[in-house]
Amino acid sequence: MGQKAKTLPITMEDIYAAQARLRGYAVRTPLIENAALNERAGGRVLVKPECLQITGSFKFRGAYNRLSQLNEHEKTKGVVAFSSGNHAQGVALAARMLGIPATIIMPVDAPALKLQATKGYGAQVITYDRFHENREAIAAKIALETGAIIVPSFEDADIIAGQGTVGLEIAEDLNALGLAPDQMLINCGGGGLASGSFLAMKDAFGTLQGYTVEPDHYDDTMRSLMSGQIEKADVSIPSICDAIMTPSPGRMPFEILQALGVGGVTVSDDAALKAVAFASRHLKLVGEPGGVVSLAAVLTGKVETKDKVTVCIISGGNIDPLMLANAIRNFGGILDKAF
Amino acid sequence: MGQKAKTLPITMEDIYAAQARLRGYAVRTPLIENAALNERAGGRVLVKPECLQITGSFKFRGAYNRLSQLNEHEKTKGVVAFSSGNHAQGVALAARMLGIPATIIMPVDAPALKLQATKGYGAQVITYDRFHENREAIAAKIALETGAIIVPSFEDADIIAGQGTVGLEIAEDLNALGLAPDQMLINCGGGGLASGSFLAMKDAFGTLQGYTVEPDHYDDTMRSLMSGQIEKADVSIPSICDAIMTPSPGRMPFEILQALGVGGVTVSDDAALKAVAFASRHLKLVGEPGGVVSLAAVLTGKVETKDKVTVCIISGGNIDPLMLANAIRNFGGILDKAF
Repeated sequence: MGQKAKTLPITMEDIYAAQARLRGYAVRTPLIENAALNERAGGRVLVKPECLQITGSFKFRGAYNRLSQLNEHEKTKGVVAFSSGNHAQGVALAARMLGIPATIIMPVDAPALKLQATKGYGAQVITYDRFHENREAIAAKIALETGAIIVPSFEDADIIAGQGTVGLEIAEDLNALGLAPDQMLINCGGGGLASGSFLAMKDAFGTLQGYTVEPDHYDDTMRSLMSGQIEKADVSIPSICDAIMTPSPGRMPFEILQALGVGGVTVSDDAALKAVAFASRHLKLVGEPGGVVSLAAVLTGKVETKDKVTVCIISGGNIDPLMLANAIRNFGGILDKAF
Repeated sequence: MGQKAKTLPITMEDIYAAQARLRGYAVRTPLIENAALNERAGGRVLVKPECLQITGSFKFRGAYNRLSQLNEHEKTKGVVAFSSGNHAQGVALAARMLGIPATIIMPVDAPALKLQATKGYGAQVITYDRFHENREAIAAKIALETGAIIVPSFEDADIIAGQGTVGLEIAEDLNALGLAPDQMLINCGGGGLASGSFLAMKDAFGTLQGYTVEPDHYDDTMRSLMSGQIEKADVSIPSICDAIMTPSPGRMPFEILQALGVGGVTVSDDAALKAVAFASRHLKLVGEPGGVVSLAAVLTGKVETKDKVTVCIISGGNIDPLMLANAIRNFGGILDKAF
């Protein structure tokens, strides 16, 4: 292991080590380029489809990187995590692969597909009321009673390093193509994926400009990056982007994003749904609303893409089928000029 | 270039050469594994998602491999092709990339999405009536008048070698995983993809059993492999699997399939639509009916998958949005036990 840089919670060595641990377990997702998307952007857009990751989102990477480093004693005690669904599935499957009992605390109003899939991976699922109960307290109680290890969804060096392998793979693929990106947009909830992946991408491409992308009313990271301190979002406001409805960026992710000079943009729920339809129609990929916000930002011109090389990420595809069918029906039509 | 084997129209050297030509132009698609699919199959199933290929199907590979070998004089004369839509798009985009004028002859009842996309890639599209006009005659007339080169969709060594890079990539990825497949199922129209890819896969894994998969009433390849001579399907029978509604396998593909001891199975349109819904729900991939028949064969138990390692291909994703939305609505429900 290399020496950690003074100011950052993780280093490239942590990401390389995570990549080695994930080999043969995580899917090595490709980098996709699409003629219709390029035409629309007026430049080149490369898409990293992490919806193709095992469990349907990038979250498996961080979870497996963390869980595979537990010692035998810790493994018998089990793990506990809380999540609206993607981290839940990542932890549940990683735990099953490693023979670790897992308890997952999920909001009772989490998408049915995510609840079902998490149970399907063999985890014990405990539901709670997002508006009246505290999930951290529930997790802490379980950890105290059982000795289980809490697996945070982003405030953890191993989790961030695992998610950073997304950026590392993108850098490898861009280098193989001989392509230097101008900018990269990453969907952002707590900031684990964004901080780890921007770290790897900035290491490979020093002049890259990074942007986090959040739903309009969950712009806590964008505001934090502007003010220089961690800001909060009002979590009572509804959004279809359940995967990234986080009240504020994690301390560790924020520190990294800030050090790398990352900026922030936001998109509407409507733009996210249209991006779901676009991904299905043109990219042949199923994305969930919170998983396509960086694509939505490209499609709605939140950053200038003309004559540039832009990278974005479809971070998850765990969308309820009815919502997907409706998005395709409403926005995916053959003659729909908007998309 | 290696010496061609006595009995087969193409060799591994042709496929390696095609791979080198395609590098940087075709998408290097991944090999996807999915917990839900494995559970259903009772074994391991690896899926090659060629719906993620540029133009939304594998057809770009063969087209680019052929067109990139035209000399400068031939390039100025242009190319002509006929296709229900996937070969059309592959030829159209490859031609545009190489600065070659392209004329594509398509059935007037081809999916609207395919007609629109082919025009979008800059090709001149001529429509014809599948039931009363002869597309070969139309193409021959254009070739005669303009000197354009006809680009066949499967009866051509360069086309087959290009499609064979799909199998070569699968073999590379399986070797990297240290995994030897027991069997492989490939969607089959004229047999270009199947013959090229089985050649590459049998070269890497000698004991592999191959199966072509066709729609129930387009079982010409299966019957040909059984009888030992090229059989015909009744093309007046409707099917939603437009991409593989071919009257009979090509002579060259058939020769290869026969030499490799490949067998054949068929699936219903209903099974194909359910596989479209399954792919969307679990694999996060958009497949068209003719593109998911090998997945449908796995899901409906057309071959034994228990305790085996099985490979199948999603060969294309150019499905009309309304058909996709309906498939998801009808067969993709959260509580739908069938899928």
